[in-house]
Amino acid sequence: MSIQQIGVIGMAIMGRNLALNIESRNYSVSILNRSRKKTDEVIAENPGKKLVPYYNMKEFINSLEKPRFILLMLKAGEGTDKTIDSLKPFLEKGDILIDGGNSFYKDTIRRNHELSKEGLNFIGTGISGGEEGALKGPSIMPGGQKNAYELVEPILKKIAASIEGEACVTYIGPDGAGHYVKMVHNGIEYGDMQLISEAYALLKSVLCLNNEQLANTFNEWNKGEIKSYLIEITKYIFTKKDEQGNYIIDVILDEATNKGTGKWTSQSSLDLGEPLNLITESVFARYLSSLKQQRVAASKVLTGPQYEPFNGNKEIFIEKVRRALYLGKIISYAQGFSQLTAASKENQWNLNYSKIAKLFRAGCIIRAQFIQKIIDAYIENVVIDNLLLIPYFKKIADNYQQALRDIVTYAVQHGIPTPTFSAAIAYYDSYRSAVLPANLIQAQRDFFGAHTYKRIDKEGVFHTKWLE
Amino acid sequence: MSIQQIGVIGMAIMGRNLALNIESRNYSVSILNRSRKKTDEVIAENPGKKLVPYYNMKEFINSLEKPRFILLMLKAGEGTDKTIDSLKPFLEKGDILIDGGNSFYKDTIRRNHELSKEGLNFIGTGISGGEEGALKGPSIMPGGQKNAYELVEPILKKIAASIEGEACVTYIGPDGAGHYVKMVHNGIEYGDMQLISEAYALLKSVLCLNNEQLANTFNEWNKGEIKSYLIEITKYIFTKKDEQGNYIIDVILDEATNKGTGKWTSQSSLDLGEPLNLITESVFARYLSSLKQQRVAASKVLTGPQYEPFNGNKEIFIEKVRRALYLGKIISYAQGFSQLTAASKENQWNLNYSKIAKLFRAGCIIRAQFIQKIIDAYIENVVIDNLLLIPYFKKIADNYQQALRDIVTYAVQHGIPTPTFSAAIAYYDSYRSAVLPANLIQAQRDFFGAHTYKRIDKEGVFHTKWLE
Repeated sequence: MSIQQIGVIGMAIMGRNLALNIESRNYSVSILNRSRKKTDEVIAENPGKKLVPYYNMKEFINSLEKPRFILLMLKAGEGTDKTIDSLKPFLEKGDILIDGGNSFYKDTIRRNHELSKEGLNFIGTGISGGEEGALKGPSIMPGGQKNAYELVEPILKKIAASIEGEACVTYIGPDGAGHYVKMVHNGIEYGDMQLISEAYALLKSVLCLNNEQLANTFNEWNKGEIKSYLIEITKYIFTKKDEQGNYIIDVILDEATNKGTGKWTSQSSLDLGEPLNLITESVFARYLSSLKQQRVAASKVLTGPQYEPFNGNKEIFIEKVRRALYLGKIISYAQGFSQLTAASKENQWNLNYSKIAKLFRAGCIIRAQFIQKIIDAYIENVVIDNLLLIPYFKKIADNYQQALRDIVTYAVQHGIPTPTFSAAIAYYDSYRSAVLPANLIQAQRDFFGAHTYKRIDKEGVFHTKWLE
Repeated sequence: MSIQQIGVIGMAIMGRNLALNIESRNYSVSILNRSRKKTDEVIAENPGKKLVPYYNMKEFINSLEKPRFILLMLKAGEGTDKTIDSLKPFLEKGDILIDGGNSFYKDTIRRNHELSKEGLNFIGTGISGGEEGALKGPSIMPGGQKNAYELVEPILKKIAASIEGEACVTYIGPDGAGHYVKMVHNGIEYGDMQLISEAYALLKSVLCLNNEQLANTFNEWNKGEIKSYLIEITKYIFTKKDEQGNYIIDVILDEATNKGTGKWTSQSSLDLGEPLNLITESVFARYLSSLKQQRVAASKVLTGPQYEPFNGNKEIFIEKVRRALYLGKIISYAQGFSQLTAASKENQWNLNYSKIAKLFRAGCIIRAQFIQKIIDAYIENVVIDNLLLIPYFKKIADNYQQALRDIVTYAVQHGIPTPTFSAAIAYYDSYRSAVLPANLIQAQRDFFGAHTYKRIDKEGVFHTKWLE
């Protein structure tokens, strides 16, 4: 009976590609799937590899070197708990379970603590990069027992993306820290995608750019400071045609779906008291998009401004959209990193933000040139209240805010929805306001609920009988 | 030993005032509080009333007519579970617990189901109206066992606010329905308050209206279609002075606090797939307000547009703000009622929206003249996709949207944060868009994650190999 160095459970696309990635780095891999069919497919499609199929849990576990490394690549949710339960009878103290699915971080905290009591290690790890990343080199964000992480680190380093000689994997922190960072990564991804789609809507509906012109614009953009994976793939998307020669982008239904990580990011922001308005608007934008039937009906009832053809300078407008996009992106990341800071404090994770930002340089969906600016900022300052205050980002805000204001103004006056561009400028102007009208809210709360208020001119807590 | 008709546990301001309200309707009331002191205070301050103090649970319970009616007025959270646990040994089948605190609706569902198994009734009820409402007539939103509700209905009807001869209390639905409706009521209240505070900021910073002028403006507004409790109290707030003769509004610290019901409303919207962007921005606006230190620091670093004194027509600007406020409010309520509809479906509550809207006419914080328009709409249509599609609201949108666009434009160009006004127009323009740029999001998701997409020209689910 052969003994393998690591086992992978779950042969859907991500699990399969990670198993192949690990095997390609000269490790032997036991594989297992709930249904036999997928396991057999992987073996049939990959002859001559150090992949060994198993069809029951006991044999699978017994086929692994000790301490065992077992990578779970399952659909997040109850299935993960069931699989862990079915594994447990065969595990021994010191074994290491690695959950590489998009698990909710609170589940990861619970599983880590429960298994820890039985002497088992549980590493919850974010893995970003999609199918291709899984196969060729993803960005990996592991949290859990640090000593257990150190045992699996050599494998993770070999399968991860690498940039400038560094592997895109770092120990993030205890229990759910890795999945939390991956969740915020995904939330940021939602924001980036919505910002790009608003830019697309503006260029298309205001300037009437066709798909080739859109591709050219994104191609140009990708040569500069907003160079990123998402800008790059968008360029390809615009020119891709189906077998009939139609641009695919033009026949895709405009209902954006989601798998919940953006929603979780927003819900966590609400719990932490973090004003994550841009990512949250991007989640709501997906929800609104999915109300296609209602929108089509509403479009025949609700009116907008009268149509006026664009009569300005196209190049200037395109440049304003680009600037709005970049500043919007910076504001979104400022909010995301502020939330990471609050979550780290709340959960005592002691997150290292420059190391986290380094993971976002390659392998993952939000990889972008400007991530280096975030890394630089956190290398210089271990803790930052808000990235907007860092000179590089402040300067972009100084120089690009008028473009963002102009684009939002144009959109609002012409009836084009730009929820995340609008959220960006509302956040920016709120954050830089020494005085906000929240004094009135406190007065109202004290009026109807005796909730009390603080004063600017003296210490203490005050209540007024407003009608006396 | 005397026997009373109802017991109230919890002698903080809301519990105390409700006990006094009930007593004033000629019921005898047993009262109990965790600490003896508050109970004694209530008795000492209210001599000669049918209030009977108890200092231990057993005697308290034994002092009540059967089936027992026990109103819990506690701080929401674990304390409620503990109190229920300490009550249970003395209760008998058929007894009715009424939780009148701001409990989280999922806790209410759980408690209702758990107690139901033991033959006990649990009514979770929203009670809105603040201290004064509790004493003189609140709006009451009860959910739970219908037959149990019918037993306590006579008392609730007598203590509730009344309008046009109708008491502001209606059976809402099973288990957590009452607390859910109260939660959304509070979320709507957050939105209303933020919209008003943005209007205040604009009138103050753009037009430099002083407090007397602000009070006059709100007084005028309160004579028309936006007449409401919150507009009315705001008018009083502006002119209230402290003992030194200073306007109190000007010395209140601009950090808005919260008790979590707005947050819950937003988190629930995210779970339901409901785009509740206005209320959510109002929650985030409170969070931003509470970052006072950061804001003061940021105000010295981050720049905005150059100051330009207002040189337009003041009356026209004030009227635009009023219109923006009313349309923003309508959009917020449209979102809130859409969420109620989704929650009703999800939880099989079979909510009756005209009855719910009737509860919002009096007693509660969001009471307003325009609620009648919502009642009329739901009397005519049992189910409505979106209130904006109802002729009355559509007409307001037709006529006032330009004002909302102009106000947002002015604010964005002048660096004044208007997160909820901005969210309102972004939602309106999204909802009335037959086509949104979400096709690009689906293309991106399919590109990097093989998440597939639907097409507008044929049925099915499609995946493209974008780089081939």
